Amino acid sequence: MPVCSRTKLDMEDQVEVVARAFVEHYYNLFDSNRASLSSLYQPSSILSFEGQSIIGADQIQQKLSGLPFGQCQHFISTIDSQPSAVARSIIVFVTGSLKLLDEEHPLKFSQMFQLIPTLDGTLFVQNDIFRLNYA
Amino acid sequence: MPVCSRTKLDMEDQVEVVARAFVEHYYNLFDSNRASLSSLYQPSSILSFEGQSIIGADQIQQKLSGLPFGQCQHFISTIDSQPSAVARSIIVFVTGSLKLLDEEHPLKFSQMFQLIPTLDGTLFVQNDIFRLNYA
Repeated sequence: MPVCSRTKLDMEDQVEVVARAFVEHYYNLFDSNRASLSSLYQPSSILSFEGQSIIGADQIQQKLSGLPFGQCQHFISTIDSQPSAVARSIIVFVTGSLKLLDEEHPLKFSQMFQLIPTLDGTLFVQNDIFRLNYA
Repeated sequence: MPVCSRTKLDMEDQVEVVARAFVEHYYNLFDSNRASLSSLYQPSSILSFEGQSIIGADQIQQKLSGLPFGQCQHFISTIDSQPSAVARSIIVFVTGSLKLLDEEHPLKFSQMFQLIPTLDGTLFVQNDIFRLNYA
């Protein structure tokens, strides 16, 4: 049934467009203005960073700002996205590499986000899990 | 407040215990009896496998059974878990390596699952994203 297929494709497209825009925005902020990342989180947000669990936008901001490296650059290899269980929420899965200033070799990483709409419809990061993939 | 801390810790512990049990079960089935993995999915489930999107338990089973390798063995490096947005649902994030029979070098991978309770309370895989992490 062409109508159903079209609708399904449109929804998949829409999820992918939002996911790609989020990924671009998130890593641009991370690499250029890390302190402003807190605007993407809420008090309920959870970050697992290399196995450490951090809850709440302020604490997450503190963690990210306090990471033991200054300028860095993310290079994205793959972006996968799926609709999640709550209406309009999205799961985003990223693989790529992270180049630290003064470090010759980039570090491979993978990261996932669950984006959930606030009451005013803006998406925020409810779940964020980051891992370096050691060779 | 010790009571709050205790309750929070208990919930985190519980999520981690369920996540670890799921990971052990999932990869054991994958490595020993791949055809039975369909029992973990539902008609609404979505798998992104190396960028290919597959919807529904039957189609996912068909994809996994049709992968172009026979016996394989997963080695798990890290398991991260968080409570998700729907009550009793869990996000599980795994990194590890995958050794194919007759292949000398294991392949690194990362994978995430969202587990959601069915009406009878059993958890099933609603979201599954798998990526190889090429060196």
